[in-house]
Amino acid sequence: MQELYLEDFAVGRRFISTTRGLDADQIKAFASQFDPQPFHLDEAAAAESFFHGLAASGWHTAAITMSLLVKSGMPIAGGLIGAGAEIQWPRPVRPGDVLQVESEVLAVTPSRSRPERGMITVKSETKNQHGEVVQVLTSKMLVWKKPA
Amino acid sequence: MQELYLEDFAVGRRFISTTRGLDADQIKAFASQFDPQPFHLDEAAAAESFFHGLAASGWHTAAITMSLLVKSGMPIAGGLIGAGAEIQWPRPVRPGDVLQVESEVLAVTPSRSRPERGMITVKSETKNQHGEVVQVLTSKMLVWKKPA
Repeated sequence: MQELYLEDFAVGRRFISTTRGLDADQIKAFASQFDPQPFHLDEAAAAESFFHGLAASGWHTAAITMSLLVKSGMPIAGGLIGAGAEIQWPRPVRPGDVLQVESEVLAVTPSRSRPERGMITVKSETKNQHGEVVQVLTSKMLVWKKPA
Repeated sequence: MQELYLEDFAVGRRFISTTRGLDADQIKAFASQFDPQPFHLDEAAAAESFFHGLAASGWHTAAITMSLLVKSGMPIAGGLIGAGAEIQWPRPVRPGDVLQVESEVLAVTPSRSRPERGMITVKSETKNQHGEVVQVLTSKMLVWKKPA
């Protein structure tokens, strides 16, 4: 992929990632390290919970989304460096789901104080194999201008 | 820890977690799975990057923060179930850092449509061993009312 600079981004430009699946073992492995709650660790306990079945940690979904953005989603020159984000999880991620990220540029903002850089605001929807949105991530990312 | 219901939360209530450290191997292991960028994977490449040295993925910091909240930060009855969050990373996390989370309740909002539940808004600052804020997470979490 060609690396992109601030001048390459325009509001409305879209990017679609490749896909990444996850299974029950991966959901439990992530949760045991980072989100050890019964509904992320154990099918029987999860069935009795708010989620009515094993569900991935939202932070696992966020991490998978990041991996898809890095590998295929948006080739920013110098890498994807986020300053901050808003995140929502409207629907649980289940074992066997296959995730894909669709991103759209919402804003392109050159820096007033640093002429060599700017920020872009990107909305990234992570969808499962049924096309249902499981995460909405709106992130501000640092982007460099083209070297003179 | 005693489990907490919606009635137990008041604006301004604070919670402090235990601590969790991370080393270069953990930073690279997380990054290789979820955020495979040179500044998270390789000291030499990181030294030449925006971060001027190896830095943890922001999503790794978020995941560690979640683990601290789950294990020690805020004992919500039924678990920590987030509907959404805002997240910022004002400073990088480095190998050898030891993180701790300080949380404060910003809002307590009973549901208008579902009498058995509500939402709390919590600001969680993740600090390193020098007291520097490395992440600010403002999250909305589902909280149950006390069973009748």
